[in-house]
Amino acid sequence: MTGPGSGRVELLPVEGVPEVRPGDDLADLLVGAAGDGISEGDVLVVTHKVVSKAEGRILDLREVEPSPFAKSFATEHGKDPRQIEVVLRESRRVVRMDRGIIISETHHGFVCANAGVDASNVPGDRVCLLPLDPDASAARIRDSLRTRLGLDLAVVVSDSFGRAWRTGITNVALGVAGMEPLDDYRGELDPHGYPLTASVLATADELASASELVAGKTSGVPAVIIRNYPYQRGPGTGQQLLMEPGRDLFR
Amino acid sequence: MTGPGSGRVELLPVEGVPEVRPGDDLADLLVGAAGDGISEGDVLVVTHKVVSKAEGRILDLREVEPSPFAKSFATEHGKDPRQIEVVLRESRRVVRMDRGIIISETHHGFVCANAGVDASNVPGDRVCLLPLDPDASAARIRDSLRTRLGLDLAVVVSDSFGRAWRTGITNVALGVAGMEPLDDYRGELDPHGYPLTASVLATADELASASELVAGKTSGVPAVIIRNYPYQRGPGTGQQLLMEPGRDLFR
Repeated sequence: MTGPGSGRVELLPVEGVPEVRPGDDLADLLVGAAGDGISEGDVLVVTHKVVSKAEGRILDLREVEPSPFAKSFATEHGKDPRQIEVVLRESRRVVRMDRGIIISETHHGFVCANAGVDASNVPGDRVCLLPLDPDASAARIRDSLRTRLGLDLAVVVSDSFGRAWRTGITNVALGVAGMEPLDDYRGELDPHGYPLTASVLATADELASASELVAGKTSGVPAVIIRNYPYQRGPGTGQQLLMEPGRDLFR
Repeated sequence: MTGPGSGRVELLPVEGVPEVRPGDDLADLLVGAAGDGISEGDVLVVTHKVVSKAEGRILDLREVEPSPFAKSFATEHGKDPRQIEVVLRESRRVVRMDRGIIISETHHGFVCANAGVDASNVPGDRVCLLPLDPDASAARIRDSLRTRLGLDLAVVVSDSFGRAWRTGITNVALGVAGMEPLDDYRGELDPHGYPLTASVLATADELASASELVAGKTSGVPAVIIRNYPYQRGPGTGQQLLMEPGRDLFR
């Protein structure tokens, strides 16, 4: 491998991971399912849902008392007021709140629908919240896999977000460990000798999106191994993927 | 293959494509480079740059007379007034124009920086424009490959766009042929029997992003074969990936 562009990349689903419960050791479950299928230099993309479950980031809506504001918005748009209350608690700022949709900025700085609060794939009257610190979650999984398997990997914790201007959701990286999330080509030259501009690639997000192609939505594949991708090793974080407020034209 | 989630997916770079010139038959060049490396059911992601070059969507800036408005914006922000003029001509609406950055909606409906006008990877005093109709471009390449190889493929024409709220660019699908660009899971149930909500996946964009992992930015890989991805065959278009104005909270 000499850099991006050389060689084939493989996307391998990690199947057979049991239902994850609060307190579970996620790395143990992933090693149990993937067996010796993980190799040095792989990128392991783990969907945040199983990370949140293992970390106990599940909330029982029966314990949530909605505020008058949450009640009023929920009533107007036919939503569950307790769920609206949780979305507001998980937000530090509302970006848009219209037509029953809440786009907000989470306490981590992610801008997404419903502050990442999700009722699907969670049993009962409960909702799943984003991990408190997805970079720390990714680092814990990476450290744990290194200890168990003696392998150096990159780990990405992913979720699927909507976008401005485009329909549908795509997977993005919330947390990153062991790699730089951005590939900066600024200053490099194209094949004609002209400098490349506007060329900072969000490769961690592209890895997350690629993983979705084998994870699907209903198929119970909580992690994907990406093999032979020559990621840039380093102490990168998912936070680096967030636009600085001062540079953001769409806050 | 029983659906997304089963089996491994491979990303294979198409290397050795010569410099593309206006009037070139792109499918011929791709077949020449990929040889018999293309198989039935592959997704071929082609970067728009070579499509635009083959279609002659290259503009010589020496032939562009900038308007007073373009001159004034360019002077204020240290830009080439002829390039600003081209960006404005390629736009049907400016979404944000601030700090030297133009985010606009192209005549096709794409919202992106500089209306997709790009000076990198183009020799001389020239710029590359987006294909006039990327869906038609994708369909032509697909039809041509079917005629030459007797294979049914999906084709995606891609470009890299910035995003609101997140740093870096990721590849997205401009044009699509032979597949549905969105996978709609609404109404399906999660493993706990609860309906999935907000679950329309922009799989064509995720295929575009995945392709970037082997195409890179400087490595001269203008196309990527994605093998073993069970895409949904159908008459989908890249236009389906654009948010309807009435639903868009960020116009």
